[in-house]
Amino acid sequence: MEKKNTEITPRDVDFAKWYNDVIAAADLVDYSSVKGSMIIRPYGYAIWENMVNILDKKFKITGHVNVQMPMFIPESLLNIEKDHVEGFAPEVAWVTQGGENKLEERLCVRPTSETLFCDHFKKIIKSYRDLPLLYNQWCTIVRWEKTTKPFLRSREILWQEGHTMHATEQEAKEETLRMLKVYEDFQKNYLAIPVITGKKTDKEKFAGAEETYTIEAMMYDGVALQNGTSHYFGQGFAKAFGIEFLNKENKLENPYQTSWGTTTRMIGGLIMVHSDDYGLVLPPNIAPIKVSIIPISIDDEILSVVKSYTDALEEKGITYIVDKTDKSPGYKFAESEVKGYPIRLEIGKRDLLENKVTLVRRDTREKIVLDKSDVLKKIDELLIEIQHNLYNTALERRNSMLYNNVQSYEELTDIAKNKPGFALVNWCGNRECEDKIKDDLGLKSRCIPFGLEIPDGKCVVCGKDATTKIYFGKQY
Amino acid sequence: MEKKNTEITPRDVDFAKWYNDVIAAADLVDYSSVKGSMIIRPYGYAIWENMVNILDKKFKITGHVNVQMPMFIPESLLNIEKDHVEGFAPEVAWVTQGGENKLEERLCVRPTSETLFCDHFKKIIKSYRDLPLLYNQWCTIVRWEKTTKPFLRSREILWQEGHTMHATEQEAKEETLRMLKVYEDFQKNYLAIPVITGKKTDKEKFAGAEETYTIEAMMYDGVALQNGTSHYFGQGFAKAFGIEFLNKENKLENPYQTSWGTTTRMIGGLIMVHSDDYGLVLPPNIAPIKVSIIPISIDDEILSVVKSYTDALEEKGITYIVDKTDKSPGYKFAESEVKGYPIRLEIGKRDLLENKVTLVRRDTREKIVLDKSDVLKKIDELLIEIQHNLYNTALERRNSMLYNNVQSYEELTDIAKNKPGFALVNWCGNRECEDKIKDDLGLKSRCIPFGLEIPDGKCVVCGKDATTKIYFGKQY
Repeated sequence: MEKKNTEITPRDVDFAKWYNDVIAAADLVDYSSVKGSMIIRPYGYAIWENMVNILDKKFKITGHVNVQMPMFIPESLLNIEKDHVEGFAPEVAWVTQGGENKLEERLCVRPTSETLFCDHFKKIIKSYRDLPLLYNQWCTIVRWEKTTKPFLRSREILWQEGHTMHATEQEAKEETLRMLKVYEDFQKNYLAIPVITGKKTDKEKFAGAEETYTIEAMMYDGVALQNGTSHYFGQGFAKAFGIEFLNKENKLENPYQTSWGTTTRMIGGLIMVHSDDYGLVLPPNIAPIKVSIIPISIDDEILSVVKSYTDALEEKGITYIVDKTDKSPGYKFAESEVKGYPIRLEIGKRDLLENKVTLVRRDTREKIVLDKSDVLKKIDELLIEIQHNLYNTALERRNSMLYNNVQSYEELTDIAKNKPGFALVNWCGNRECEDKIKDDLGLKSRCIPFGLEIPDGKCVVCGKDATTKIYFGKQY
Repeated sequence: MEKKNTEITPRDVDFAKWYNDVIAAADLVDYSSVKGSMIIRPYGYAIWENMVNILDKKFKITGHVNVQMPMFIPESLLNIEKDHVEGFAPEVAWVTQGGENKLEERLCVRPTSETLFCDHFKKIIKSYRDLPLLYNQWCTIVRWEKTTKPFLRSREILWQEGHTMHATEQEAKEETLRMLKVYEDFQKNYLAIPVITGKKTDKEKFAGAEETYTIEAMMYDGVALQNGTSHYFGQGFAKAFGIEFLNKENKLENPYQTSWGTTTRMIGGLIMVHSDDYGLVLPPNIAPIKVSIIPISIDDEILSVVKSYTDALEEKGITYIVDKTDKSPGYKFAESEVKGYPIRLEIGKRDLLENKVTLVRRDTREKIVLDKSDVLKKIDELLIEIQHNLYNTALERRNSMLYNNVQSYEELTDIAKNKPGFALVNWCGNRECEDKIKDDLGLKSRCIPFGLEIPDGKCVVCGKDATTKIYFGKQY
């Protein structure tokens, strides 16, 4: 009966296999003949479309406009900012032939577009009146990853990249943090994912950035997913590209820059935070389909009840699907669970005799038999309740795997070996100590978390004075 | 005063230069350091976003879902369908290096995605129950064009490509024409562009298609723009890729396929049909900003009137822009014209003394002084009227350049040399005659127009029996 569900490896048996099984069972992705590139199937793409629509509105409300840059970057353009090219050149794809001819200069497929934006900004920025420039781009980027995993690490990535230019350092820094906050709110209110916000170390920051801020999510298995980043560039690129504007004092100055991005990897995060052994679980605020309606048998009476509900849902703007196929009810229930539809509405003959129908919550799998006429009100309530419940469950689990009181390297070692999650430690700020934790224990620095920066002891590695506290953890 | 406008070469003096000037003056596009690729600037991209949103809704209403395929095609995959590879291989960009390594097999950047879709369809189509598959993709494609022109011919193109699979020939043919009709309606009702619909000749059809249908628009200068195409593939790709399904009789069969696409070139069409010597003219139904509000002076009284209008427009969902800068009114008027905002609302002190304000139509440039309280009603009316007027003007002009009664090669020659537009001629159906018209007169076949196919004379070239009538014309 529960055909599809039984194909899923239990989450606690093999998390990696469970992840792939959920993706396959829910028809999110297919593998392609292009090594390392995935096909995002309709249901997976519908989740991305929701993410795009919600974020795009938030970007527009905060004053940003969309543009489209070329997908190719001439090698000489990529080479202009030194740190940037060192960071990206080893992992790009190169176009060397166009049509019948070998190219004079090879072009890389954009791994990110700072260089292209700067090249354009140089032409259009002349005066402080042209600032701030608040641009965003939705596009595909390519990074030639050696090992790939659907949504998390792929050679092609769908993403958005914000690129902004400002007249002052303060404005640019405010923008960097404003967009980090937009990301944080989106994760919390739509994806139901709690995130830790903070600053990346110099080692982990974006190639070419002065400061990188991150939203760090924790997956079910205690491993981190960097789910979005926001960068402050200072004037680095502007100087390298010769971008100047006449300020209010009529003097030439380099503008201050930011960039910020999120990707389809957020779908991977959704899966690894909320889903279970029965398949995908989606928070109502991001789910493409909120209610799955299953007529237990297909006859006129039942279909007319279905129709009364679909009419009402349509009016309310609540998305739904009706499964009228000749598959067994059990198969339909399992299918509905695998796809993670937040609410299932079962309508059967026997229930109807008593004027009842059944609602099933996907998050708790709780069955609620209720009066036919109470369904719509209950759906409204449940959509809110499920959203909150998923967030709270994720928050509680995440908090139970935060080790905020680690005082020694031994404790940190114990956590690395035996306790999944993030450990907050005192740190001297030196790269050597950060490297040692990575090399010895396999933990990478996550971020210097906002509000928890102030050290209260010595560096957990070298024992010297700490300059900050910082989270370490394994990562995807 | 009319600073921006005076930068535009008059349309009747040099149409090509006028086109580029309008694009530059309206800030639609910038040239990039990547030869042949353009940057679509915020205002140009906003037009594309409107096109995407409207078309995407139409595709979804007709049952289609969006997916995302890889952007690369391995050479061996591109090579599977013979006609297709011959058509596309000469004009693709090749990736030969990924990261530090030379690739074992080179990858082309997709010029179109039939091969990728077929590779995927082979895996997911098993039974007639899986059909029809109605997919669409929004993405960027690359064609290594030698000469480029903003929006019309570019190395990178933003587009949508529908790809569908059906159990029967009839269903697939119906889909091909259904989507052509969706395109036609979109052109008419949103872009205000009349199109001639019909079938392409074998010479002009898509590489690999059995039949290609087109919507042919005529630009201000009488030259054709193929503004969208819809292809019926029969079972050609399905056989080449080994795609099979179990039909209702439990027998294996190849499915029947279609694809259809439109691109950013539609923006070029919009410009060349409607715009004028004062800049861009946009039909209200596609314009990102419908009303431009210009306070003649910036003081509290005027700004409070502005506010009353913007509140009302917001409530009605009518997009607007308010120019509160310290530029002169004349400059603002010119800017508003250059950008093609359909309606300009001028609010000045002197008018207000008499409770009046001024509306200016962008299409006719007519000034309407009216009572303050009549503005909102008038805006509603004008938006409809301007949309109709632009369509009717385009239709009349187009019709005045259709030569539907061409009886001899001499007449056709005269048209080719002296009369811009399309000529409808009797044709024997042979490639030689089609080629001769191209080689001698520079006219390419546009299409065999629906409803006008039946010949009424001999082939205009060879004098043999005609099998059809067909339009010829110059093209972009």
